[in-house]
This record gives sequence, structure tokens and C-alpha cells, in this order.
Amino acid sequence: MPAIYEQLCFITKRLEKHLHEMQDFEFTVQKGELFLLQTRTAKRSALAALRCAADMVHEGLISKTEALQRVKPEQVSEILSPQLDLSDLDVAPLARGLPASPGSAVGRIALTADRAVSMAGKGRENPIILVRQETVADDIHGMEASVGFLTAHGGATSHAAVVARGLGKCCITGANAVVVNEQTRTVKISDLLLREGDWLSLDGLSGQVFACKVPLRAGSLHNGTLHEFLGWAQCVGTTPIRANADTPADAERARRAGASGIGLCRTEHMFFAPERLEWIRAMILTQDPDQRQQALNHLLPMQKADFEALFRSMDGLPVTIRLIDPPLHEFLPRLEEIDERLRRAHQRGLHVGEIASLEGLRARTRDLQETNPMMGHRGCRLGITHPEIIVMQVRAILEAAIAVQRRGVRTVPEIMVPLVAGVNEVRAMRKLVDETAEAVFAELRQSTQYKFGAMIELPRAAVCAGPIAKEVDFLSFGTNDLTQMTFGFSRDDARKYLDAYIEAGILNKDPFITIDREGVGALMQMAIERARDANPGIKIGVCGEHAGDPESIEFLETLDLNYLSCSPARIPAAQLALARTAIAGEAHAATVVPMETRQETLGIAM
Amino acid sequence: MPAIYEQLCFITKRLEKHLHEMQDFEFTVQKGELFLLQTRTAKRSALAALRCAADMVHEGLISKTEALQRVKPEQVSEILSPQLDLSDLDVAPLARGLPASPGSAVGRIALTADRAVSMAGKGRENPIILVRQETVADDIHGMEASVGFLTAHGGATSHAAVVARGLGKCCITGANAVVVNEQTRTVKISDLLLREGDWLSLDGLSGQVFACKVPLRAGSLHNGTLHEFLGWAQCVGTTPIRANADTPADAERARRAGASGIGLCRTEHMFFAPERLEWIRAMILTQDPDQRQQALNHLLPMQKADFEALFRSMDGLPVTIRLIDPPLHEFLPRLEEIDERLRRAHQRGLHVGEIASLEGLRARTRDLQETNPMMGHRGCRLGITHPEIIVMQVRAILEAAIAVQRRGVRTVPEIMVPLVAGVNEVRAMRKLVDETAEAVFAELRQSTQYKFGAMIELPRAAVCAGPIAKEVDFLSFGTNDLTQMTFGFSRDDARKYLDAYIEAGILNKDPFITIDREGVGALMQMAIERARDANPGIKIGVCGEHAGDPESIEFLETLDLNYLSCSPARIPAAQLALARTAIAGEAHAATVVPMETRQETLGIAM
Repeated sequence: MPAIYEQLCFITKRLEKHLHEMQDFEFTVQKGELFLLQTRTAKRSALAALRCAADMVHEGLISKTEALQRVKPEQVSEILSPQLDLSDLDVAPLARGLPASPGSAVGRIALTADRAVSMAGKGRENPIILVRQETVADDIHGMEASVGFLTAHGGATSHAAVVARGLGKCCITGANAVVVNEQTRTVKISDLLLREGDWLSLDGLSGQVFACKVPLRAGSLHNGTLHEFLGWAQCVGTTPIRANADTPADAERARRAGASGIGLCRTEHMFFAPERLEWIRAMILTQDPDQRQQALNHLLPMQKADFEALFRSMDGLPVTIRLIDPPLHEFLPRLEEIDERLRRAHQRGLHVGEIASLEGLRARTRDLQETNPMMGHRGCRLGITHPEIIVMQVRAILEAAIAVQRRGVRTVPEIMVPLVAGVNEVRAMRKLVDETAEAVFAELRQSTQYKFGAMIELPRAAVCAGPIAKEVDFLSFGTNDLTQMTFGFSRDDARKYLDAYIEAGILNKDPFITIDREGVGALMQMAIERARDANPGIKIGVCGEHAGDPESIEFLETLDLNYLSCSPARIPAAQLALARTAIAGEAHAATVVPMETRQETLGIAM
Repeated sequence: MPAIYEQLCFITKRLEKHLHEMQDFEFTVQKGELFLLQTRTAKRSALAALRCAADMVHEGLISKTEALQRVKPEQVSEILSPQLDLSDLDVAPLARGLPASPGSAVGRIALTADRAVSMAGKGRENPIILVRQETVADDIHGMEASVGFLTAHGGATSHAAVVARGLGKCCITGANAVVVNEQTRTVKISDLLLREGDWLSLDGLSGQVFACKVPLRAGSLHNGTLHEFLGWAQCVGTTPIRANADTPADAERARRAGASGIGLCRTEHMFFAPERLEWIRAMILTQDPDQRQQALNHLLPMQKADFEALFRSMDGLPVTIRLIDPPLHEFLPRLEEIDERLRRAHQRGLHVGEIASLEGLRARTRDLQETNPMMGHRGCRLGITHPEIIVMQVRAILEAAIAVQRRGVRTVPEIMVPLVAGVNEVRAMRKLVDETAEAVFAELRQSTQYKFGAMIELPRAAVCAGPIAKEVDFLSFGTNDLTQMTFGFSRDDARKYLDAYIEAGILNKDPFITIDREGVGALMQMAIERARDANPGIKIGVCGEHAGDPESIEFLETLDLNYLSCSPARIPAAQLALARTAIAGEAHAATVVPMETRQETLGIAM
């Protein structure tokens, strides 16, 4: 049937040329006649899709704009992160959780942060996967020592998830089948009992957990094609994208990823290093103002050094620094841990003074415990009751800025107050910041510019955004907390019913991953309108995790924002999502038919 | 100086006639000339103010409308509740907390609910004041046995405060100087160590705590003048006022107080009686659907009997029943308590099976624990994951309605779903309710009318009130939770910073007591507009504690509501506040000068 073969070649070439995409055809030949049954864009791996699109640009077949539309942001994330290679294996997943941070991880189980550090210290037991019921701020050293995290509780914005995305590590949260027993150093996953040191593999794309050592295919971070492709995305005029970065190392990573600044530096993350935690605890535990000031004086040079390094890394780019946010008890050990230490102290017959000091720690920890810490004594509320902490932080920021400016670094620090509910808190905090600035400038006989802003993360702040906007230079939406309060969904607990909600069709998506347009989005829209009315020159950004989610970006791009800010690891995909949204917007304006509608199902006889 | 005396009589009579109020004058005579320095409305006790106003009506000096303006709602609360008589005593308050429920109480200290019950059982140790760090749902039997509550933590809408107002008992919360030690059965208040059985006196007006037995002046509940006066208030055309009432006894009290219905019956309060708690716990602890249904089958007739009694008490008046609201772990003992029981079980060498069952209880309790229970698995979220509980409750409501209707009682139950975030939950719950109703009607071969409504207590529900309104017959604002989520203030923890906020002028008032007009109020206004646009026939009420606060009522009356609903004990004062607001509104419309501006400070020579 050479004639029919020629006819097939003719048709398929024409279709590929017409559709500008590699096609997957179905055809039949009946009684010497060719029937083309279907044509659709061929399925390829993420890397193949990228290469194919780039090649077609190089061959002049499609424009760069068209190439950008052919690779999905999720495919970029996939290319960038290591993947489990399950191709030669016949293993079933042991459990499943929420894929909270992309990538994959293979390593040996550690059940506490301390164990993770000590196991990582011995080379033999590396790499480590930290498995916990849930992680807390105190676990940070163990998280740094591990390649991935698995938690029984938590959702897309629980502690483990947020830290994982920040560190660019794989994380699965809310894996209900996981039950950790720290005492016996075992973990039950579904029906299997595993010990510390056993191998575990996490698939951060699907949320699957495997109880064995699955081979890992490395991510293509240094892929030249990807680099070129992302360059095209950056050339599309979009909303600038910044990074959420807490440490100088984060900042370097952010800058390499093409971030146009830091949109969120969480200063409290700087407090968790052991030598600092000691002083922050001393500050919390004392009721004596002098001792408190002494502890803060110890912290000041440490924070200042961090800020100097941050400003140097981001020379010429904006850096937004959020003042202390979490409730103070997050810096203290857990009550059960103190009880355990007390029990052991009594057994060992410890010195009375040492027991008394443990009992003092216990009393203060208990005193600081809250029924609902997310709605507790945190954010700017700490600034109102403990202004001395804010003064120390502002002093560290401004002294650092002046110090690096003296060495030629260009920086204008942006000081941001979290969790404001209304204009009066903003006024009180601005007064504190401005007064501290004046004092610092007088002492150093040099001044620096700085900006003052507030986070909009409480529904009341969204409603009152007009008056708030008049008092600030910028606003930044903390969409994680705003989602939490608007829905009344505790992000640490919501997994228990969110799955049922999605299954029942009550929610389409997890609102902590993809922004809820109808509720949270409507509040944002209202807030932005009111803020711009009250202060037309105001800068407005988003620094919640939604800023790194491609689907949320589509919506956020309709909001007239000045910047988005997400984890460094999510910047490439977010950059592509922004470019695609911009291109789609222009295509729509020119009523060009979008790519997708060209993919037709054909059933014609020819 | 008889001439001057005559002159004084002439002037003061004229002033009293002009100002229509008993005056407190200051004058001087210099060189034979009378100078009147000042005149102002004389200060009187609440009871004197009431008698004076009523007498002036009887004497034809002022109208009933004017009389209503002369007695403040707070004075009515004062008249109705017992007061500490400190006149002959020279005692200083030992501590101070938030006056969370009016009235006063004198009694002997009990430090646990069980002790309160056992002490109250022995006549000698009565009356009881329950002193706790904070109360939980489990303490209800002890609260019923006590005359007043004092807690170290909590605010105006913490558990103790809400229960106290419901029971019409005095309560002081957030008394930070109180440290309870259950083990030694002692409580340290400021620097004084007290034991169970020691006397304590609480002043619910000022929040003061006295460490002795202060004499008590009874409240004038059966005061004829007050009764007549409140009748005048009821004659002013205002928004109807209903009661928040959970038990038949509450309902009787509500009806006597002039409630026009029940606006909020919290069905879970019915579960806390010991013989019911057993079954609700059985339902929670089992994972087996059959066993769960069996437990629910035991609860059904108990709930049904309660509803029958409620409907009978409120014959002819509306009764709104809220489906189960709190997270399930509130029905389980606290983890520490279970641990203590386990410890004792091991010591006593208890049977292995009994220890295993305690360990099962512990595991399930731990499993249900939440980091932020207020934003946890509660309200309609329970209805989505555990529809069988809702089916039981709806069945009990409708079977009860039909049973009493057969005996001639007129009732149309209003079934209300708490904590909805959007329209999809409302649709799912309505489907469940309607299907259950159909099943009940088919079984009983009789039907009854019922209404279906939703609570607006999450910011998202306020934003999405339009679509929600289309699916319901009525909406009711839960302003306690709405305040909590809008501010992101945990009502159990907020005392730690609320006082500092009020002191610093950041807040004028505790927003859990007086509604926040700018934030929460603006959300309510928006929700009402959207709801009435979408469903013009909809009925909208408020059932949060703000509905009983005179100052909040002034604002709520601007919102176009169909009813307000508050604790029975607060109805008389709320009724007066409503009447005064209505009168002030009319006075304003006719530009009549309000009473207050007539109270001038004079300094003229005559």
C-alpha cells in the first residue's frame, strides 16, 4: 500500500505543521481506503517536552512565546527535582500522604531531629529521612541534616511543608498511616513495623511512600536547555518574582534562580541555631527587664551579621524582613520533654537548684501554652507587649544596612510587621520603628532609607486595608494565614477533613495549595481596591506559598500586584507560570485561538 | 437669709422642672448674693433610679418613653443580680479578673467539678464557688452544683463565661493571679494560699475577688416596679429578642424573661449528663459503623425527649436548634486524666483488658487532639465526615416536633448548621436534613414543617453569604466565632494581650464583649446586603453574646435584622437597650435634643 503510506505521510505532516506539535495519530485502512481516526499532541516526559519545544524554536518552527506555552510549570518542577526511578522495580507504595514539597528522597529513617543529626554525622547512615508525627520549630537542625521529611499530620502549609520548600527538600505530610514511637525507636507505616536506620523512599510528586531503597534519577538543575528556556520566560514582561529566603544561603539560591529580591525573610528562623536558642530562651524565661535586655543584647550582633550577609547577597535588590512572628512558646522545649527531664533529674538525684530551674522552665512553658496558638500571642501582638524585641530587631536591620552601605552595597531594607488586625497596631509599630531608627542614626551619625510595611493575613486587616494603607509604604498578603482564618481551617489539623471535603466535591482543591478565589481571593481583591484608593503609590505583594503555585498565579495575576514571593525552589516554575499567564492574556486580547483548542479529536474519512 | 432660701427653692424647682430630673446642686452665698455653681443629674443607686423614673411616670411628670431613657440597661442587670454588700466591711480585693457574667457569688472553694458536686451534696459546705485554671465541657456537672466560677484563664466568651451567662451565674475569668493546684487541693491567689472549703466572694460587676465571706444583697428579680418598667420597654416596637437556651429549664426561664423564642439551642450541651456522655464516648471511640449506630440509637430517645420538652415550653414560639458544634475530643476526658488513671491502674495491678481499654481511650483521645481546636474538626465539618450524627439529631428534632404537635403544641423547628464556610457545605447538609425528614415522615406517616438555616461565623461565610442565602430559610450570625476568626484572636487565649491592647488604646473595648463595628460589623453588613439581595424573604438573626450587650445592640439595630438572641439572664437589659435605641432613633429623626445634652454644668450668677 505505498500510495496509502504516502497519503498518510502527507496528511500527518500537514497536521503537524498545522498544529505546530508532535502528534500521536490513530488510523485504519479499510478496503484500500485510509481513515484517520484521531490525532492528539503526543505524550512525552517533561524533559522531552522541553527539548522538543526548544528544538522547534532553534529550527524556526515556532516562536519562543509558543515554546513557553508548550511546557507546563509542573514539568519544570519535575525536571528540576530528583525522581524515583520505579521502572525496573515491582514495589507497591506502603502509604500515601500529601505531596507537600516536590522532588523525591531516598534515605534511612530517623525519628527525632537529634537522631537525624547524629546519624548524618556518621557517614554510614546517610542520607537521612526524618519521620515525625509532625515537626516543630525545634526540629530545624534535624531537618537540615535530612534529605526529606515524612509526617503523619499536617497539610500543605504545616511546619514541615514550609521548611521543606524553603530548603528545596522533598516532603510528604498528612500520611495518616504513619505512627511514630520515639521510645521504641520504631515507626509503624500501615501494617509494617520499621526501625530507625531502615530505608525509605518518598515520591514527592505523588505522595507515595516506599519501604525500600528505590534508585534515584537526579534532577537536571544544570540543564543548559532549561536555562535557555527559563531565560525566554524571564523576557516576557510579568510581575516580578521574589524569593522567601531566611538565610544568606537561601538568598544565594534565590539570586541564582533569578529572584528579583527577597519578599519574605522570616527573622525567627535565625533564632533556632543552638547558640542563639539559648539566648532567646533566656530572654523568654526571665521576668526581669534588665536580664531580658541583656539576652537581647546577645542576640543583636547575631541578627545583625545575618542581615549584613543577606543585604550583601541581594546587593541592588529589595529585601523585605518580617519582624518576629511565632508565639514565644515555640522557642521553648515541649512540656512532655521537660517532664521527662524532670523525671530523670529526680531519679539521678540532681542538685536541688537544677531541679528548681527545670521546674521554673516548666512553669513558664505551661504559662505560655495556648489553646489555639495560631490565633494566639504572636505577630505584632508580641511587638505591643514586648517592644524590646522589636527594638532589637529593627536596630539589627538598620545597623546592618548602614554597615554594608559603608562598603558600597546598595540596599533599602523593607521592615514588615506581621499579623496586624487594624490601623492602630500599624501606627504603634511604625512609631516604634521610626523612633528606633532615629536613635540608631544618631548613634552611628549616618542614616539609611528604609520602608515600612504590614502583612495582610487576617480577615480584619483585609476589611480595614484602606486606613492601614495610609500608614505604610507597602503591604504583603500572607495568604497561608489569610486562608486559615477566612475558612477557620487550622492548617495543622485540617487534613482530617480536607480529604473528605475534596472527595465529596465540597472543595475542588486544597485551599492551602491553590488559592480560593471565591472567598480568600474576594477578600484580597477588596483589600487591594481599598488600599490603592487610600494610597495610590503603595506597593502590594503576596508572600504566601500560593505565590509559587502555577494555578494560583493565574488568579493572582488579575489582582494588580507589584510582586510575588515564593520559596527559591519554586521560582523557575512560577516564572514560567507568570510568562504563560501573560501570554495567554495577550492572546486573549488579540482573540488568537489558544493552543489547547487546536487539539481536536478527528474522525474523518479522507 | 430667708429671701435667699426662697430664691434657691425657686431656681432649683425651675431647674428640676426644666431638666425633668432630680438635680444635685452646688451653690454659694457671697455678700448676700446667691451663686448657683453647678447642677447635674443626681447620682442614685440603680434601684433608686428605677423607682424615681417609675414614680415620675405615675405622677404624670414624664412619659414612659422618657422613663425608659432614664434607666440604663446596666442598671437593670444590677438590680436583677445579687450584689456584694461591702458597706460595713473594710476588705481589699485579693485579685481582679474580667467580669464575665453579672451578679455576685459567695461560697466555699472547690477546685474540681467532682469536688464541687460532692461538697454541694453535703449541706454543710454549700454554696460552692468553682475555681479552675479554665473550665472545659467536662466540668458542666460541677458548674451546675456551684453558684459562681473563677478562672485563671479565658475571656468574655471562654467556656466558663458562656456557661455562666447561660445558667445566670456569676463568673470572673482571666484572673491571672489565680494558680490552682489540684493535687494539694490548694489555690494560690496573689500571695495568699487558700484551701478547698475556704470562703471566697466574687463581685461580678467589677471582677474583684475577696478572700472572705462578704454579705450578699439579693437581686430584685420579683420587683413589681421593674416588671412594670420592662413591660413599657416591651411595648416599644423593636427587633424581637430570643433566648439562647439549651435545656427545658433554660427555656422556662427564657419565656418568663419575655423571650420571643429560642434563637440558639446548643444540642451538645445535652450530651454532657453522665448517662449520655457514656454513649457519646462509645460513639466516638468505636471505629465500627454498627457499634457507632448502636450508640447513636441510645442517644436518640434522650435528645428527642429534650426537644419535646423544649417545644412544649416554647409552644407557639420559634425554636432554633443548632446541630452538633464542638470537636469530638471535647467529649473525651483530658489526656492527663487518662494518664493518671493508667498510672493508677498499673499500680493497682488492674486486669490486662481494662488497661488495654484505657490505652485504647488514650490512643483515640490523642488521635483527636488538635493544635488549634477552634479551627478544627467541628461544626458542619463533623456533619460531612460523620453524617450519622446529624441524621440522629435531625431525627430526634423532627420526631419530637411531630410527637408534641399530636398533643396540640404549635412548633416549627428551625434546624441550624454551624461553622459553614461556603455554599457547598450548606447544600450537602440540606440534602442530609431533607432526606432524613422524608424518611421520618414516611415512618411516622405524618410530617411537620421545618426551617433550615446556617450560621455565619466564618469570614468566608460572610463573603459568600449571597450564594448561601439562596439555599436556606434563615441565617444567624455567631458573632463570638466571627470575632475570633476576623481578628485571629483565640477567645481562650486573648486575655494575655487584650488588656495590653486596651491599655495602649489600640482597642477601645474587648471585641468579644462589644462588637467591633469597623471589622466584624463591616463584614456583617456586607453579608446581610448580599444575603437579602439573593433571597429577599430570608430571616436573619444574631445569636452571639453580643446580642445581649447594650452597646452592641445600638449597632446591631442599624443592621436590618429579624431577631437577636442572648442568654436568658441578659434579656431584660437587652430589651431595655433595644427600646432605648428605638427611642433614640425616633428622637434623632425628629431632631429632639437627647437627654444627655441637657445635663449641663452651670456657673452663672443670678
